[in-house]
Amino acid sequence: MSSVIYLDHAATSWPKPDSVMEAMKTAMEEAGANPGRGSHRMAVNASRVLYQVRHRLASLFAVRNPNDIVLTPNTTAALNLAIKGYLKPGNHVIATMVEHNSVRRPLEYLKRTAGITVDYIAVNEEGDIDLKEVERSFQPNTALVVCSHSSNLLGSILPVAELGEMAVRHGAVLLVDAAQSAGMLHIDVEEMNIGMLAFPGHKGLLGPQGTGGLYVSSHVELEPQLHGGTGGQSEAPEQPDVRPDRYEAGTPNTIGFAGLQAGVEQVMEWTTEHIYRHEWELTQYMMEGLSAVNGLRMLGPKPGRPKTGIVSFVPNNIDPALLAFRLDREYGIAVRAGLHCTPLGHQASGTEITGAVRASVGIWTSRQDIDTLVDAVTKIME
Amino acid sequence: MSSVIYLDHAATSWPKPDSVMEAMKTAMEEAGANPGRGSHRMAVNASRVLYQVRHRLASLFAVRNPNDIVLTPNTTAALNLAIKGYLKPGNHVIATMVEHNSVRRPLEYLKRTAGITVDYIAVNEEGDIDLKEVERSFQPNTALVVCSHSSNLLGSILPVAELGEMAVRHGAVLLVDAAQSAGMLHIDVEEMNIGMLAFPGHKGLLGPQGTGGLYVSSHVELEPQLHGGTGGQSEAPEQPDVRPDRYEAGTPNTIGFAGLQAGVEQVMEWTTEHIYRHEWELTQYMMEGLSAVNGLRMLGPKPGRPKTGIVSFVPNNIDPALLAFRLDREYGIAVRAGLHCTPLGHQASGTEITGAVRASVGIWTSRQDIDTLVDAVTKIME
Repeated sequence: MSSVIYLDHAATSWPKPDSVMEAMKTAMEEAGANPGRGSHRMAVNASRVLYQVRHRLASLFAVRNPNDIVLTPNTTAALNLAIKGYLKPGNHVIATMVEHNSVRRPLEYLKRTAGITVDYIAVNEEGDIDLKEVERSFQPNTALVVCSHSSNLLGSILPVAELGEMAVRHGAVLLVDAAQSAGMLHIDVEEMNIGMLAFPGHKGLLGPQGTGGLYVSSHVELEPQLHGGTGGQSEAPEQPDVRPDRYEAGTPNTIGFAGLQAGVEQVMEWTTEHIYRHEWELTQYMMEGLSAVNGLRMLGPKPGRPKTGIVSFVPNNIDPALLAFRLDREYGIAVRAGLHCTPLGHQASGTEITGAVRASVGIWTSRQDIDTLVDAVTKIME
Repeated sequence: MSSVIYLDHAATSWPKPDSVMEAMKTAMEEAGANPGRGSHRMAVNASRVLYQVRHRLASLFAVRNPNDIVLTPNTTAALNLAIKGYLKPGNHVIATMVEHNSVRRPLEYLKRTAGITVDYIAVNEEGDIDLKEVERSFQPNTALVVCSHSSNLLGSILPVAELGEMAVRHGAVLLVDAAQSAGMLHIDVEEMNIGMLAFPGHKGLLGPQGTGGLYVSSHVELEPQLHGGTGGQSEAPEQPDVRPDRYEAGTPNTIGFAGLQAGVEQVMEWTTEHIYRHEWELTQYMMEGLSAVNGLRMLGPKPGRPKTGIVSFVPNNIDPALLAFRLDREYGIAVRAGLHCTPLGHQASGTEITGAVRASVGIWTSRQDIDTLVDAVTKIME
């Protein structure tokens, strides 16, 4: 697979640092037991893996108490816990039109079943929201503001700190979907007034699939979404009150979280500032190259503006899915075509019928990779 | 860690076959993309991993349509989906007193919040239930029978085929918790009239933690418990109808499921019949050895009777937790002490205050390991 030019980092980062697989192998050999379910050394080692990854994540996101971080199998599970665990019948929610289906579908589910109401704030073509519209949307029963930190279609960066300040002022809680920002943008949950932060382990944090998490501020109380064994307080018929056990029933993916720890350590060594700058420069270079291709419309923030490592575009003379297919088969370039689980974002950019091609860069991506992509797109569209 | 005598296989099997880590490494290199979310080769490889593990599991459990197997992060998630996704307000449930907290706590949660009622069938000291009592417990509104295939405290094997026949006769569905039986006991979902089967990937199936699943008969319809992206039908505000997507929102643990596939293949090569016989003989040998130790009471089925690889016992002159601790520190033997997330099972065996020590064997366990355990227990209790 060494000949692949991988430009699908927004789906999952690849390859992972060698340290990730090494950490997983070590964990499988030395911490292969069930954490918190025994006192023998391997069970203790397994508990230590979870303790350490929680500490690393807390340090990355400026979380004071690592036990406020719930480890989950993915961002979707984290967002489901946040949304369904927090909202009550009659609550009003403010979300945006760039939310992923992992936010939109739980909200639509609660609209149908629990009588909540939702306002989706419009985004413009560059993926920006109007903060004044957000301000006007608050109602006395607004309990939650949900916002993607960066659009997985447009790469635009949303003003989460401003939303956090507004949410606090209105007595609501801000939930940030960091699927496209964890490990790439600076995140400080205190400074940004983030009440809940859902993040994947396998994208910007460079860990394996099967890992993710949810930070839950100590001020926020959730109804657990999973009921089962936690290793402690086995006699009680209910989930224990203590965090993180309360929200973590069942055997966790210890091996995967050992890998995530190595990934987070790599990110912290490189720093998110460096990673962001690297990816931003590559997107600017890619937009420059693609702007010379006839019949290709680029979506999202204009050149020069802040954005994450995503460039989406729509060709005018070929189905985006076919373009992606040919890039893979003829040039060994992995990009993604489709609706990217964000149908409202496509409505905003007028691409809800065609979808778009998304090329997303990562820490390993080089200018040569971009040259190859631009060259290939040019040839296919000629 | 080579000096460890690992007798905690009921918590998780260890070590895993070498093929499991190799499969995970290969998947990380060649299928490290996000399955179903792209058409490029690595995304296709990732989809293939999930397709293959589903086929292997279907073959092991005699499931006709592999798409009726929902892949989950663990058994707890599978049981939560089964119980909360199936039951409706006013339903009556028949369960047993050996159920794990991952069954009991979801049921108790629905008792509090959704007005269901539950009868827990008593077990005797050997961990058996009285089928006549089950028969008498059916009510016109009985929708679900839930039964652990094998008690995680006592090792007793419950008559799931008989329960399946009864459930069908009364128009109810049988949910089997195969946490202690998948990969160790013969399971045929058709023959046994199993409507739903929840199983772990990391115990008898020899895969890594972070993997599990739920078989859902095509006759059974569940309300999804996770809402989010599935890679298909992105435009709809609701989960798609098609299986398995309907129940599998979010990025799956592809790396882990590649490992599980290797584990299942190893199980099928060895056969569950062989594994069961190996583990049964070791439990008989262990019970024989431990019966010579003064002041030690063994729980569960008497010698000669069918059981899985679990032997639990209560020492009369030392706290079970201390005995387990000393076995680890002084002899390098990993067993587990506590309530094992099954408080009602402990009530049945009169050990709800003290808990018990559980030694559980696996495919790698030898008679010498048992000799060392019996020797160590004898010395500590002298």
